[in-house]
This record gives sequence, structure tokens and C-alpha cells, in this order.
Amino acid sequence: MKVCRTRAIASTTSSRNKNANTTNFATYMNIFNKLHDYIDDNFELFVKRLTQWLSIPSISTLPANRKEVSEAALWILDQLEAAGLNDATVIETKGHPLVFGQKLVNPDLPTLLIYGHYDVQPVDPLEEWITPPFSPDIRDGAIYARGASDDKGQVLLVLFAIEAWTRTAGAVPVNIKVVLEGEEESSGDAIEKYVTANPEMFSADAVLICDTPMMSATQPSIITSLRGIVYSEIAMSGASSDLHSGSYGGVAPNPVHGLCLLLGKLKQEDGVIRIPELQKALDDSSAPTRAELDYWQQNGRAIRAELCRTMGVTQLVGETERPPLECIGLRPTLEIHGIRGGFVGEGEKTVIPAKALAKVSLRVPPGLDPDKVAEWFTKAVRDNSPQGYETETRILHIGRGLAVDPENSYFRAAVRALEKTYGKGPLLTREGGSIPVAALFNEILQIPVILMGFGLPDDNLHAPNEKFSLEQFRRGIKTVALFLKEIT
Amino acid sequence: MKVCRTRAIASTTSSRNKNANTTNFATYMNIFNKLHDYIDDNFELFVKRLTQWLSIPSISTLPANRKEVSEAALWILDQLEAAGLNDATVIETKGHPLVFGQKLVNPDLPTLLIYGHYDVQPVDPLEEWITPPFSPDIRDGAIYARGASDDKGQVLLVLFAIEAWTRTAGAVPVNIKVVLEGEEESSGDAIEKYVTANPEMFSADAVLICDTPMMSATQPSIITSLRGIVYSEIAMSGASSDLHSGSYGGVAPNPVHGLCLLLGKLKQEDGVIRIPELQKALDDSSAPTRAELDYWQQNGRAIRAELCRTMGVTQLVGETERPPLECIGLRPTLEIHGIRGGFVGEGEKTVIPAKALAKVSLRVPPGLDPDKVAEWFTKAVRDNSPQGYETETRILHIGRGLAVDPENSYFRAAVRALEKTYGKGPLLTREGGSIPVAALFNEILQIPVILMGFGLPDDNLHAPNEKFSLEQFRRGIKTVALFLKEIT
Repeated sequence: MKVCRTRAIASTTSSRNKNANTTNFATYMNIFNKLHDYIDDNFELFVKRLTQWLSIPSISTLPANRKEVSEAALWILDQLEAAGLNDATVIETKGHPLVFGQKLVNPDLPTLLIYGHYDVQPVDPLEEWITPPFSPDIRDGAIYARGASDDKGQVLLVLFAIEAWTRTAGAVPVNIKVVLEGEEESSGDAIEKYVTANPEMFSADAVLICDTPMMSATQPSIITSLRGIVYSEIAMSGASSDLHSGSYGGVAPNPVHGLCLLLGKLKQEDGVIRIPELQKALDDSSAPTRAELDYWQQNGRAIRAELCRTMGVTQLVGETERPPLECIGLRPTLEIHGIRGGFVGEGEKTVIPAKALAKVSLRVPPGLDPDKVAEWFTKAVRDNSPQGYETETRILHIGRGLAVDPENSYFRAAVRALEKTYGKGPLLTREGGSIPVAALFNEILQIPVILMGFGLPDDNLHAPNEKFSLEQFRRGIKTVALFLKEIT
Repeated sequence: MKVCRTRAIASTTSSRNKNANTTNFATYMNIFNKLHDYIDDNFELFVKRLTQWLSIPSISTLPANRKEVSEAALWILDQLEAAGLNDATVIETKGHPLVFGQKLVNPDLPTLLIYGHYDVQPVDPLEEWITPPFSPDIRDGAIYARGASDDKGQVLLVLFAIEAWTRTAGAVPVNIKVVLEGEEESSGDAIEKYVTANPEMFSADAVLICDTPMMSATQPSIITSLRGIVYSEIAMSGASSDLHSGSYGGVAPNPVHGLCLLLGKLKQEDGVIRIPELQKALDDSSAPTRAELDYWQQNGRAIRAELCRTMGVTQLVGETERPPLECIGLRPTLEIHGIRGGFVGEGEKTVIPAKALAKVSLRVPPGLDPDKVAEWFTKAVRDNSPQGYETETRILHIGRGLAVDPENSYFRAAVRALEKTYGKGPLLTREGGSIPVAALFNEILQIPVILMGFGLPDDNLHAPNEKFSLEQFRRGIKTVALFLKEIT
């Protein structure tokens, strides 16, 4: 039965999956029991190996951590070999290196490209971590460390699934290519440049990315779209140097106030982004599906309650008249990631600062061109800056969104793998985050991108006390092991 | 002539100035020539001694600099003795010490209390200083160092005036008490507590404070009012920890945005402070004099041009329909001194911060009660905070404003002293800054407060590259030396 379903779907998009026919049901079950046993028997060891990797502070955005980023790359290179991959290589780039490995078992079988990243986010505010970010701590069934869920835990679960196949069945059931980058959190373009220059090296039938959360530990989900991103820095300046507020307060430009006025105008309390071209473009861009609207309506109260619980708030903000999952997954957002200006030390200082700076990003719905959005945003900053200030917008990076066809055979294979592991079919969800590389693979390699992640919503990504559920880690390994068979 | 004028004015308020009658004009001129010569002959040495004091980083707001604050107190104690004062003492307090000294020459003569402060502001942003803040550098006729103008240079010019009298005439021509504090820049209350507990120790007929700027080096000015101050910290919080903007952006509270909305509402681009009780109270509080209005109107263009030049801007902001000197001297202001929240380091981080903080002060016109203003402000923060955030206002300190009666004999003596030194009568001006201790002396000791400062508008108070004009330093010594005689 299993085999038939696999073939029925796979045959609509691939002509190379004849091998699926040769596997009989008993053998299939036998392999899966062996895989499951192997994963369970070795799970403690898997956690130990994860702990090792999480101890390396591979913060790609900090020049001071360059050595540790390289160290994390070398560490994972060994794991590629341990998983049974060949040609494991560290590819030097102008930025942080790429790590590559592959196992080509049979040219008649499909080839799966696996992508992940071995770099992590910065850790500040450090004082809010319960245990140090690079001293992994296991408590309440989860491992706490920077990078646990984003993305080291999820890279390793894929490699351990491959390793389970290698050790149990002698080899993986499909052709595998793995590429890992070290600049995902620092917006480096090494992978983009390398993949663009060497597309044949990465040629595959689909790409698997495990770098996202699912809805909950009891409700698996899989992603059908990603938002793009425009990340910017707005610098505002007033007087030529800091001024005393007693001598000049009332007539001097105060760039902190100027930034407040500007940012408060660009997005008001109603959460609507005041960029006319963007609002106009939204009318024509991708809308939620009927199924999504129904699901959001039926589960509105529960979804709101769960979001409030996870965030530790009593109410949501923004465009509250819209379903919150539409706001997170499909609407554009404008968020201020940081602001600085003037004196914020201990005590008091009656200064009017000469300069202020804000880091602001826009998340871009999959149907919109982020280059255009960056243009509109820059214009809106110019148009809304108060009189008497110099304002400069620097676009630090632009990432494209992505929409996945849920009828695609690889996507459906992922759906089945999740269903088998979790005993429950996954919900199809929108991911509000941005994985620019997903759009890159989709565009350059022209292959479907499967975003099957095992994080949970309360994993504290990019925040203090990042964690990864060990049960999700275990199930992730099992699901990916299944998926590798489901796509043959 | 000189004597007559002095007596004519002094006699309206004091019965103790009989000695003035006994001085004949020739003796008077003789003394003044000697004083001037002494000051000019010793000026290089005075600058050297100022340089020494400015090298001590007595930043009172930084706990780490406690030792240096004490060191600055001991250094100036020696200068009190060098000036010929008796009873020179360091008075320990719970905070930084007070420095006291006096010279009681004759109970029939008036007693002048002199106030100053030996602590200085913090120095950040340090990288913007052309020469290090505690390595005084003389260039373009000014001495550059933190505290040069605010207030070490101005404390020393008073002590050097006293010293000139002691060395030239054997003693000062009036009774002198000097009190210096080390918490002016950190809002400590040591002096308030000590003066309140020991009013007889500070009993005097007037107090002289040299801690303010004058209009320009060619146009002396003297202050008729000070604004009060309410200094606060607004802390806003959203989610219970930092969040990933991809996963929660659009529905999560973002306290940086919340603060922008709040601060943008409390003061909009028109510069009007949106605190209804404050606006109502302003209708009844002190208005500019007819003379001020005329002066502002006649010199409107020049005043605007000079302010723009000093600040390095092309236009003023705020309530631009009002005369700028009214905005600076008499109107209330709301200024943001600093803001912090989220990630502002190198690179990017797509975080939604859980917390943000702003330091905000209001300058309060002399006619208004700052305690009331603090209450109204706290209420306005509460009323204008966006939904979905926790907002907390901490009032860090409150200082009262002050209005000086320009008909007072001590004030008129200061006017004459300035006129004689500068060859031009001083303009009566409003000081936008706050010297809470001035209001304290006025209230507790019930004596007039003479605010005769020798700083210049471009002294970069509280900012990088603070300086004090050496010519103002010299003229300040001469003016104060004259003033001491003018009040007898």
C-alpha cells in the first residue's frame, strides 16, 4: 500500500523512481524497524554529538568569532563523513566556508539536495540567558544553547537520518548532496555566488531544508510559503554635535525624537504600514487559500491563545482585525530590531544627541518583489522624515520570498513522512521568516524546495535561551529517514 | 561717580554698606589697577592651575570614578586656602563631599555666598573628542576638556578673583562663604540636605553662581530666570523574551515601536507638548516681558542665524512660530536624551526586543511647580501608551526653576561689573537650563541668586569637545573681582 502511494505520486513528476517497485512491503517494514531501533539505540550519543557542536560559538556576524565559525565547519565536515557521505569538503569563500558532501548511489534514483547552516545568531542580551549560550544545558526535555534549533540541531537530525540508513541498510535509498553554509545569520552571499557559478555541482530533483518550526509537538506542520525580507539601517542626524538640552532644548533637532516621529508614521498603532506603493501592490499579490481562511476562522481563538501564551502577552497587537496567522505568514511587516541614540548609561545626562540609528526590516509576502519594496520603503523614509533632519537609509540586504506547490510529489512525500512519525497529518502553514537561500535554489536550480522543520514556536530563536526539544530531535531524525525512502 | 551709583542702588536694600562711603575714588581706581595687573600678570599660572584640575576625571554619575571625584574635592580645597579663605573643610556626606571655606572680614559688610560644583558630566561618545576629555588642550584661544566651562573653569575664576583681592588688598572687600558640591551632574541631594539642616552656616545676603553661558564674547548677558526640570526614565516591555521577527512579526508587541508611538504622541512635529494639564497651566504662568518681546522681534533673524550657526543646522525645529529664545528660556520642553532597545551592534539581527527604554526630561518654566509637571507627565505617558505594552515611568529627579528680580541691588551690582569689564551693558536673558540648587538657596536661605556666568553658547556643555574661552576666563576673574567691590 505504502509503495503504491509513493509510486502513484512520484510518477507524476519523475520517471526515475523504478526502484520503488522492487521494494516489497516486508523488506520495507524490516528496514524501518531497523532504522527506528538504530535511532533509539543511538539517541543518547546523538544528543552528545549535538552538545559538542553547540559548544562552538559560530556567530557569523561577529568578526571576532571567525575562528569559531571555521571550527564549527570542520566539526560538521567529520559528521558528513560519519554519515557515509563522500567527497566531504570545506569550500573556502571570500566569507565563511561552505561544507559539501554527497552520496550518489544510483543515477536512476532521484537526487535530494540538503541545505542547512552551521552559523548562529549573536547572543546578547547575554545576562538574560539562564545557562550560558555555548554551554548546552538539558532541562525539561530540551537542549538549551544558541543554535540548538536554528539550525545546528536540525542540520544534525538530517545527517543522523542519513547515518541511520548507512549503518542499517548499507547506504541511503536516494542520491544525496549536502551543502551547509556559515553566513545564513550574517547575510553573506558566499553560497549564492558559489551555487550560481556551479549549478551542475548542486543539480538535484528537490531540496530539503530543515530550518523552521512546526506548529506544536502534537500537531506537525509543513510550510507552503516563506516571506522575503528587506533589512535596513536608518541613520538620522541633527546638529553637528551633541547639545545641552537646557541651552538648546525646544529649538534643536533631536534625532531620537525625529526617528520616533518617522517610525511612528511608517507604522501606526493599527499596524498598517504606511507605504502607499506597498499597500497598492498587496491588492494584487497572493491571498490566503480558502482552506487557510477556514482553518484560521475555526481555530481563531485557540491560535490567538497559543500565540499569547508563547509570547507571554495578554493581547496581540497590529492588524488585529485580521487572522494572526495571516499577519505572520502573508502580510508584510515592518519591525524595528533595534534603536540607539544619546545617553542610556547609568544616571542622567541632559544631552540632545546629534545622531540616532534604527535597524528596521520589512517582511515581504511571497508574491511581492523585495527589490521594489526596498525602493518604496526608501522613498517612504524620505517622504516621512521630519523637517530639519538628515536621514539616510542603507539597505543591508534583500531576500526573496517563496511559495511551494503543495501538489508537488516531494512535498507530498514529506507530508506522508510526517504523518507516519507523528500519527497525524501535518497542517500546511505559512512561515513568516525568510530563508533567502530557499528562493535561490528555487530560482537557480529550478527545483521544488521542501521546508520541513522540527523546531517549536517557543524555541526562542534569535533570543536568549534558545532551545530544541529532544523529542522533536528524535522524531526529526525518524521523519527524515522515512522521507528519504518516500521520495524514491 | 562710581561710588555714588553703587551706594544709590545698594542703599535701597541693605543698611550695611556704610564702608562704601569711606572709599574714595582714587583709592578705588588704585585697587582696581592693582587687581587687573595682578590678574594679567598671573594669568598663565591661573590657566596652568585650571589645567591641573581639569585633568581629574570627577564624573560624579559613574560609581567607578568615586576616587577621582574625591581627588577633585581635595584639589579645590587647597585653592580655597590659596585664595585666603579660612575654615576650608571637606564635609563628608552620604554622596560626594561638599567643600566649604569662608572669610568673614567685617560683620557690618554684606556676606556673599558663592556656589559652584567640582563634578563633571560623563564623556561619551568618547570617540568624538578631538583631544581626550581629561587631557586639557589649548587651541584657538580656548581650553578643551570635560568640565572646562561646566563648572571647573567658572569655579576657579571666582576663587582667583578672591585670591587677587587677598594678594593685592590684603583681604576681600566683603564677607565670603564658598560652598562647592560634587553631585550637580548626578542629581545627588547631599547639598540640599546639608544646607537645609545647617541654614545658619550658609546665611548670607546673596548667592553668586557662575555656571551659565553668556550671549557672546562681545555681548555680555546675565540671567533673570532658570527653568526647572523633571528627569525621567520610561521603560516599556512587550513579550516575556526577545522574539524572532519572522515568527512573530506583525502580531507581537515591539516596545521600540511602542516607545516611538508614545514619544511621537507626547511631542509631535509641531513641537507642542501634548500634556493637557501642562498646556492649561502655561496660560497662567510667567510670560516674557515687553522688553524681551521687543528685543526678540528686533533681533529675530540674527538670533535664529546665530543659533543655527552654533548648532550646525540650517533650520530650527519645534514651535517655530514662537521666538526661539522664548522656546529655550520660557517654554516647557520635552527632550529625549537617549533611547535603547534591541540589537544595534554590527551586522543584522531580526529580533523583536522584549524591552526598550528612553530617558526623557521636561524643562519647566519658572512659574510652574515641577512636582505637578511630573505628575501630569506620568499620567500622559500612561494615557498615551499603546495597547498591549507595559509602561513604567520612573522620575529620576525634579528641580525647581527660579526667577530673579532685576531690581535687586546685587543683581544691579553684577550688571555694573559686567558693563565695566566688557565696556557694554549686559542683556537680561532667560536660561533654559536648570540649576536646582539656585532654587534651593532662594527658598531655604531667602536670598537673591545672582546667575552671572562666563561660558559661551558654543562651549559644548555635556557634549564632546567641551571648552572654555581663555579670554572669558580672564574677564570672568576681573568681573567677579569688581563685583565683590560693587556689592559693598
